[in-house]
Amino acid sequence: MKLLIVGSVAYDSIKTPFGKANKTLGGSATYFSLAASFFTKPSLVAVVGQDFKDEEVFKRLGINISGLEKQPGKTFAWGGEYSFDLNSRKTLFTHLNVFENFKPKLSSDHKKSKFVFLGNIHPSLQLDVLKQVNAPKFVGLDTMNLWIEKTLKDLKTVLKKVDILIINDSEARELSREHNLLKGAKKILSLMQSPSPSPSHQGRGTKNIPSPRGGGLGRGEKIVIIKRGEFGLLMFQKGNIFHLPGYPLEDVVDPTGAGDSFAGGFFGYLAKTDDISWPNLKKACVAGSVMASFCVEKLGTKRLLEIKSLDITQRLKDFKTLTHFEI
Amino acid sequence: MKLLIVGSVAYDSIKTPFGKANKTLGGSATYFSLAASFFTKPSLVAVVGQDFKDEEVFKRLGINISGLEKQPGKTFAWGGEYSFDLNSRKTLFTHLNVFENFKPKLSSDHKKSKFVFLGNIHPSLQLDVLKQVNAPKFVGLDTMNLWIEKTLKDLKTVLKKVDILIINDSEARELSREHNLLKGAKKILSLMQSPSPSPSHQGRGTKNIPSPRGGGLGRGEKIVIIKRGEFGLLMFQKGNIFHLPGYPLEDVVDPTGAGDSFAGGFFGYLAKTDDISWPNLKKACVAGSVMASFCVEKLGTKRLLEIKSLDITQRLKDFKTLTHFEI
Repeated sequence: MKLLIVGSVAYDSIKTPFGKANKTLGGSATYFSLAASFFTKPSLVAVVGQDFKDEEVFKRLGINISGLEKQPGKTFAWGGEYSFDLNSRKTLFTHLNVFENFKPKLSSDHKKSKFVFLGNIHPSLQLDVLKQVNAPKFVGLDTMNLWIEKTLKDLKTVLKKVDILIINDSEARELSREHNLLKGAKKILSLMQSPSPSPSHQGRGTKNIPSPRGGGLGRGEKIVIIKRGEFGLLMFQKGNIFHLPGYPLEDVVDPTGAGDSFAGGFFGYLAKTDDISWPNLKKACVAGSVMASFCVEKLGTKRLLEIKSLDITQRLKDFKTLTHFEI
Repeated sequence: MKLLIVGSVAYDSIKTPFGKANKTLGGSATYFSLAASFFTKPSLVAVVGQDFKDEEVFKRLGINISGLEKQPGKTFAWGGEYSFDLNSRKTLFTHLNVFENFKPKLSSDHKKSKFVFLGNIHPSLQLDVLKQVNAPKFVGLDTMNLWIEKTLKDLKTVLKKVDILIINDSEARELSREHNLLKGAKKILSLMQSPSPSPSHQGRGTKNIPSPRGGGLGRGEKIVIIKRGEFGLLMFQKGNIFHLPGYPLEDVVDPTGAGDSFAGGFFGYLAKTDDISWPNLKKACVAGSVMASFCVEKLGTKRLLEIKSLDITQRLKDFKTLTHFEI
């Protein structure tokens, strides 16, 4: 298996100024895997309740859901309402339901994943997942203000063990305690740095994580992507910065899942190309941004379920036309 | 003369969280011409009072100030204070002084200018300047919320006679009455469209403005640039969109003059290359953004007065590294 996502599958109730959806398929692992499925065949590890009935949606797109546990009880349910300009939202309710006791268990196949994305769950669960993976090539992490505020120590532990952190600007500011995003990114990159490996240190407390390739898990320079909504993103790696704007859209209907769709497109592209060089990371950002731009065009997952490969190819080209110049 | 700027020369008193300056050289025509001077030899038309003593600053950079009138009274004085994050500012005072009765008079040399930028003054004065120019190739316009609110009719008249409007996002939203900038840009481009020329219509009320090349003044498709501060800019022309991010800086000291420096770099580059094709307009955006990024690094005009050509060349390249990818 090439790409593994561990996160939430949920039923969302969404109200935006332009429409509403009740109990529609949502959750970080859902958006991630739908977006990634255009580039590779992702595997999903998540939990749902007895009320869940959308397995076919995933299967149709070639997403492996052998890791989708069904537990007694109801599926995680979230309700949110967006402000008129879609830049802020109010959570109306959060019913964790079966998600409350989610303990991700990886099958022997899942453990062989090369690309792993740890969706926005408790950092100690993220760490637990990571310990189960044998020898990942590239590990990504999402987090949120809740974990930065409540479980910073655990978050810092897992940060040192991943290759890339993908968060939004307010989270980056909160985590780094820097308003300026360049300074913030530098601080975050230093938080992600693991102590230089020494013979006595290696492997301690990470029994199941071989680290033959040094630093972090030792796979080279850490990366942070800071998402800025409609203003696009900044990607940082030691000595490198990349900026990509948001795709200009006349009508944004529903921002739900845009960040997860970005991460899914990004990781899907990397898994497909099996290349984590800086030039390819930039291309992966474009692929992710394309998926996020489609995601927001309709309510919930609707748009992601109707687009075709050609739509994606066209929008990848559009991004180049939008941003490139000769000088 | 290739490039003419008509606007304000002022003494600014600036307070930012990182420093302050008292009665320091400022004004739209100042920042514009300083920035443009790295690419061409701009000419400036403005008015100052008897207290003005900074002619040498302009002359040293090759700026033609034969159009800098000295009038009895004091130079336009402005005082402002910035919020901690530099995104908003409070005007502490505005003493128009000699600027109050400014009636720009163009010399016969000025009238031959090919590139003209109408700084942020009353639209009827902008129109008056435009009537004095013989056969400009490319005319740009700045404006502000005051004129959108108080003199919309005059503003709409002058909009139809220029090739490019350079404004910020809030002004674009106010002028177009659209929150979405794509929709807003389309509306603004249609406001800039002059009625199709007909024999009976041509030349009416624009006695001194020959319009041999049709539309607007008839020089092809209109352009609008929407500036978004640290988030960069969007440039629109029928069928074309270009995005450029703000140059990422760790320390922004003073945003005063950034927009005028952008316009100066943009027009300076166009005047130097004498090319208003879409690919060259994109390059001009990069040149303008480079100048704006230098401008904000120190208080007032300080940084613009110390940079060298090599600094500019380097930052032009940085913009490419920051934004380009292969796909």
